[in-house]
Amino acid sequence: MRTQVAIIGAGPAGLLLAHLLWQRGIDSIVIEARSRAHVEQRVRAGVLEDPTVNLLRECGVGARMDREGLVHHGISLRFDGMDHRIDFGALTGRSITVYGQQEIVKDLIATRLDIAGPLLFEADDVAVHDVQTDTPRVTFTDSDGTGHELRCDVIAGCDGFHGITREAIPDAAKQTYEHTYPFAWLGVLAQANPSHHELIYAYHERGFALHSMRSPTVTRLYLQVDPAERIDNWTDERIWDELALRLAAQGFSLAQGQILEKGITAMRSFVVEPMRYGRLFLAGDAAHIVPPTGAKGMNLAIADVRLLAEALTALLVDKRTTLADSYSDLCLSRVWRAEHFSWWMTSMLHRFPHADPFQQRLQLSQLRYTTTSVAAATSLAENYVGLPYPTTD
Amino acid sequence: MRTQVAIIGAGPAGLLLAHLLWQRGIDSIVIEARSRAHVEQRVRAGVLEDPTVNLLRECGVGARMDREGLVHHGISLRFDGMDHRIDFGALTGRSITVYGQQEIVKDLIATRLDIAGPLLFEADDVAVHDVQTDTPRVTFTDSDGTGHELRCDVIAGCDGFHGITREAIPDAAKQTYEHTYPFAWLGVLAQANPSHHELIYAYHERGFALHSMRSPTVTRLYLQVDPAERIDNWTDERIWDELALRLAAQGFSLAQGQILEKGITAMRSFVVEPMRYGRLFLAGDAAHIVPPTGAKGMNLAIADVRLLAEALTALLVDKRTTLADSYSDLCLSRVWRAEHFSWWMTSMLHRFPHADPFQQRLQLSQLRYTTTSVAAATSLAENYVGLPYPTTD
Repeated sequence: MRTQVAIIGAGPAGLLLAHLLWQRGIDSIVIEARSRAHVEQRVRAGVLEDPTVNLLRECGVGARMDREGLVHHGISLRFDGMDHRIDFGALTGRSITVYGQQEIVKDLIATRLDIAGPLLFEADDVAVHDVQTDTPRVTFTDSDGTGHELRCDVIAGCDGFHGITREAIPDAAKQTYEHTYPFAWLGVLAQANPSHHELIYAYHERGFALHSMRSPTVTRLYLQVDPAERIDNWTDERIWDELALRLAAQGFSLAQGQILEKGITAMRSFVVEPMRYGRLFLAGDAAHIVPPTGAKGMNLAIADVRLLAEALTALLVDKRTTLADSYSDLCLSRVWRAEHFSWWMTSMLHRFPHADPFQQRLQLSQLRYTTTSVAAATSLAENYVGLPYPTTD
Repeated sequence: MRTQVAIIGAGPAGLLLAHLLWQRGIDSIVIEARSRAHVEQRVRAGVLEDPTVNLLRECGVGARMDREGLVHHGISLRFDGMDHRIDFGALTGRSITVYGQQEIVKDLIATRLDIAGPLLFEADDVAVHDVQTDTPRVTFTDSDGTGHELRCDVIAGCDGFHGITREAIPDAAKQTYEHTYPFAWLGVLAQANPSHHELIYAYHERGFALHSMRSPTVTRLYLQVDPAERIDNWTDERIWDELALRLAAQGFSLAQGQILEKGITAMRSFVVEPMRYGRLFLAGDAAHIVPPTGAKGMNLAIADVRLLAEALTALLVDKRTTLADSYSDLCLSRVWRAEHFSWWMTSMLHRFPHADPFQQRLQLSQLRYTTTSVAAATSLAENYVGLPYPTTD
C-alpha cells in the first residue's frame, strides 16, 4: 500500500485533514483503531468557535452544521446569585455555534465516503516507522486480521492524547508540559430542553457547574467533583439536586429529563513541543490537551489541521519546506494562548480544595471585574469566540 | 483635649484626611508616632494613578506635584529581549504621574502647618478606647513626655500595617485575608539619570526586575530576590551586574550612579474586613497591603480617605449615617480590585521558585497576549492608571 499522507486517527482532526488534502489533490489514507459506530457516537465537545465555523463552511462540510447548529451570541457567568452576560456580538461582532463533535465526525465521514476516500476502521497494532526519513511507513492489521504496510511521504498523528504517534518521538527530541487540576467534571447528557438559551458558567461555593446543550431537546450539564469521585456514587436524583443547588438563581428553574449518559472526566493541561518530528506531524489532542472550561479542545485540533493541510500542500506539491518547518511554532502560539485561556477560565470559576479565603476573594473580584469592564469582557469574549487564524502568506 | 476626628498616623492617608476634613469644616488632630523628619524622608511608593492626581489637584495640594511630577503615558513590559509598550494614552486617554510618596507627605505637612492644624509627632503609647461608643478616646504621651487623653467623635486608623488601630478590633469582629509571595524585592535608589523615560517591567529567567525613577536625576530600581536574602550579600557592584543582566535589551544601556539607599521588602497581600468597627474607621495600609508590582498601595490609601472624608462629613455635620455605614463595602470593592490586579501583575512577571515549565509557558503566553490584544492591554492600562472612583450620591 502507498499514499502521500498516512493519517492516524479518524476524529475531527484526522477526518478534516483528509478532506482538506483531498481538496488540494493530495492522497491520504485514514486509519482508525475504533469502529465507525464508536467514533460517531462518542460524546465530546460541542462549542465551535467562529473561525472553526467559517473553516468548515468554506471547505464545504458545514451544510448540516448551518441547519442544525445553535448560534449563540453570548454566555453567562452566574455568581452572586445572578447572571452576568458576556455579549459576544456587542463585544466582538462574532458568535459561537453549538454543534456536537460527533455530528462533525458524522459529516466528515459521510463526506469521505462520498468521494470513496480510504478510511479504515478497527485497525489493530498500528505502528509508525522511519519517521525521520523521507519514506516513513505505517504498519497495522486491518479489521479482517490481515497485516499491512503503508508507505507514505508524511504521517499525520491525529490519534488523540492516548494515541501511539506522539510516543514515536524520542524523549530526547520532545519536551512535555503538564498540569493536573485538583478537580474533575461529572458530565451528564439529558433528554431535557435546555433551561436557558445560552451556556451558563456558575461559580458556586459548592463548586463549579455548567449548563450547556447539544440541541433544542438535549441538555448537557456538568458538576465540578473531586477527581477521586466515582460515578456510582451519583444517582440521577443526587445529580439533579446538586445541579439545582449550584445553578440556583432568581427566575431560573432547571428542566429535568432522562439522563442518557453520565461520566467523570479528569481536568488536564498538556502540551508536547515540537509538534513535528521529521515526517511525523502531530495535530489535535495527540499534541495538546486543555481543560474543557474554555471549550477549546476541538477548535485547536481544527486550527492545527488547517495549517497542516497548507504545510503539506507546500511540501508535497510545491516542494517548499518553509511552512512545514514553521508548522509547529505557528500551531504552538495558538495552543499556548488556548492553554492560558483555558487555565484562566478554569481558575476563575472552580472552587479549589484548600483554597484560602484570600484566593476566593480574588476570584470574586475577578468575576465582578470581568463582567463589568468592557476591556476585560472583550478579552474573555475574543478568546471564547476564537482569535483570528495566523496568516501564512 | 477634644476634637471631632482623631487621626492616628501622619502618612499620606492621615494627612490627606485631615486636609479634606478641614476643607469641610471638621476639626481633627493628627497623632504620629515617628518624627517629622522620619515621615518626610522614608522612601515609599512613587506612582500616582490618574484619580489620585486629580483628587490632590482638586483639593489644592497638587501645585508642586504638577510642577515636579513626571507625567507618563505608558509603561513597557520587557520580555523576549525587547520592550512591549502599554500605551495608556491611546488605550485609556489617561496617564500616571511619578511623584514620590514622601513628597506628598511634605506637601501635606506644609499645608497642615499653614492652617495651624494640630499635628503631633513622636507620640508614644498611643491607644484607642471605647470605639464602640459615640465617645471614643485616644490616649498617648506627647514628645515632652506628658500624657494626654483625647476625646473625639470618630477615630481614623491611618497608622499603617504595623499600627495599633486595627488591633483594637476584636478578632471575632474581623476577618483577615493574607497571601505571602515566595519572593521579595531588593530596591535601590540611585543618583543616576533614568535609563528610559518610562517604567520598564522586565520578565527574565533570572527573576523580575523593574526600572523606575523618582526624578530626572534619581533612578529607582528593583530586583526580585529570595525572601530570605540578606542585603549584606548584595554589594553595589553585584546589584548593578544583576540589573544589567535582567534588564538587557537591544539598544538599552543601564545608567549607573551612586546608590543612595538599598533594602529588601517582603511581598505581601493583606486585607481586613470590615474596615469599620463602631466609631473606628481604618484607611490605607492599616486595612490592606498589596505587593508593589501594580503601584497601588498609596493610591488605595488616597481613595479610602476620599470616601472617609465624605462619610464623616455626612455623619458629623449632616447627622446622616448611610455613607459611614457603606464606607467599608465601598472601599473594599476597590481594594479587592487592586488586590487582584496586583496579584495578577505579580504572578505574570515574577519567576516562581519550583515553578513547572507549564506555568512559565503560561506566563509567556499571557505576556504576549497582553501586549498584542487591544482588549487585554486596555484591561492592564485601565487598572494601572486607576479605575474611576465610585459615585456616592
